[in-house]
Amino acid sequence: MVLSEFKLIERYFRQQGISRPDVILGVGDDAAVVAVPQNHELVLTMDTLVSGVHFPESCSAYDIAYKALAVNLSDLAAMGAQPAWATLSLSIPQLDEKWLDEFCRGLFALAQQYNVQLIGGDVTRGPLVLTLQLHGLVPKGGAIRRSGAKVDDLIYVTGQLGEAALGLMMEQGQIAIHDEALKALRNPQARIEEGIALRGIAHSMIDISDGLAADLGHILEESYCGAVIDEEAIPIASSLRHAMSYQEAWHKALFHGDDYELCFTVPASLQKKVDAIFSHFSCGAHLIGRIESEGGLRCRMRDKHIQSMETKGHQHF
Amino acid sequence: MVLSEFKLIERYFRQQGISRPDVILGVGDDAAVVAVPQNHELVLTMDTLVSGVHFPESCSAYDIAYKALAVNLSDLAAMGAQPAWATLSLSIPQLDEKWLDEFCRGLFALAQQYNVQLIGGDVTRGPLVLTLQLHGLVPKGGAIRRSGAKVDDLIYVTGQLGEAALGLMMEQGQIAIHDEALKALRNPQARIEEGIALRGIAHSMIDISDGLAADLGHILEESYCGAVIDEEAIPIASSLRHAMSYQEAWHKALFHGDDYELCFTVPASLQKKVDAIFSHFSCGAHLIGRIESEGGLRCRMRDKHIQSMETKGHQHF
Repeated sequence: MVLSEFKLIERYFRQQGISRPDVILGVGDDAAVVAVPQNHELVLTMDTLVSGVHFPESCSAYDIAYKALAVNLSDLAAMGAQPAWATLSLSIPQLDEKWLDEFCRGLFALAQQYNVQLIGGDVTRGPLVLTLQLHGLVPKGGAIRRSGAKVDDLIYVTGQLGEAALGLMMEQGQIAIHDEALKALRNPQARIEEGIALRGIAHSMIDISDGLAADLGHILEESYCGAVIDEEAIPIASSLRHAMSYQEAWHKALFHGDDYELCFTVPASLQKKVDAIFSHFSCGAHLIGRIESEGGLRCRMRDKHIQSMETKGHQHF
Repeated sequence: MVLSEFKLIERYFRQQGISRPDVILGVGDDAAVVAVPQNHELVLTMDTLVSGVHFPESCSAYDIAYKALAVNLSDLAAMGAQPAWATLSLSIPQLDEKWLDEFCRGLFALAQQYNVQLIGGDVTRGPLVLTLQLHGLVPKGGAIRRSGAKVDDLIYVTGQLGEAALGLMMEQGQIAIHDEALKALRNPQARIEEGIALRGIAHSMIDISDGLAADLGHILEESYCGAVIDEEAIPIASSLRHAMSYQEAWHKALFHGDDYELCFTVPASLQKKVDAIFSHFSCGAHLIGRIESEGGLRCRMRDKHIQSMETKGHQHF
């Protein structure tokens, strides 16, 4: 059965089980209309996933949709924003109803978790490429930027690093399957609540998509400062640690990315406040270093010597 | 020379010559931040163009970018919204700096015309696919929907129909080149000012992307009503009229689409007001028919017989 684009949108994307009161007009007109509450600002992020580039062609529709939303949620988390509305562009080679069912199941499972309503987008014929834009809200002036780090700020990282790297090795058949690591790769959890809790606390924040070294590097570059981190303080995922040598695991934790943890800096005077906040979050926050005036990223190794570090991340081209 | 994604974004997309005061944070962080003025609502539209589907592979980067923005501007026009900010996802097979220069030239030429600032997006490696989201503003409650048409409303169409159809025939080598028609196809003009002028006047509005019959059909469907239009009132582009038989031209004007004119309905009591408004716009607005309670679209032909009309437009699959 061939469905027209309109029937398709009607059938799949109007049935999401979320209906926010601030959506004046959702899917189905020339454009959507939403209301931004007074004294709030709108935060927007857009990410594109291409089949064969960002996910293997064998990836399930559920996982593709889930990850597209998850990586955007993570960008909002890094700003301290509350997610609100999504728009979706889906280019697909053909109308496969089973695939679309699975896609919507993945998308709406995560969307419902964060009360995100799909309000519009575009469905078209073409190679498998999806672009998701997510819209969030922050109180006026409350967005946490990359550019706010100050000398002597403490540097923190949430959760553990490197499990997605392990997941990718599994997906590529390099090592045996470990469900948790595959889940970390395919269904990452954005740190939305943690990001919101850091409003007014963190001077700067970023999510770790390109690797800790690269993403911390963005904070340093945008904040015109440098940092020293401690080799032993890097929270390497235990699964990664068990799967390879310490050296390899440490390298992946720092340089691989795709973890979607948060890296943030706070004034040293707020250390106890950060501890108190993260006593409520199971992921925890790990103090890994300190901002310095001297540019560049350095690491204090176990033997106490200071090693200069590369901040080049994943190269998109 | 290979540029990283970050350098690329920096180089091409931060240099646009537009800097709106309501952009709190533009390109370069995890997300953008903007301020929506009080007592206004946010209008969002997203369109995707795929190489080989929505434009020929030979299409210039300038025209691709121009059209991507133009079709989104047209969606905002159809809501009566004032354009404000754009986000762009660009999937490209390789980093071709000349192509990117041309692309930005096309994008920013039109963006500057409407004071639209590019505030974020994503650039990735993949097949040539671009998704543009445009954000506009309307006074609270002021968006003009498809669903507001009322029985006895007059139906209007701006400009002339079918020039894009002629442009496509030229592009496909079916007839000799006519610059104006090619321009209509590749660099369509959205009716932004006209759409804004119709706030508080039009009961319903849509832009003609799928063809007049199909798009008017959307108004009828969403407004739970029908319409009769006059064969002789349809504003067929004179270039189209000269290039083929009357019958063929009429058919293309009604069913081809890609024209980006506005179709709107107003209460009959406001006919003079519409005339006064459009005396300021060179495109003009043509009274083509009337809304009726009986569902479906009908046409009063020259010989006065009423012909039932198909409202199926361009099939996207």
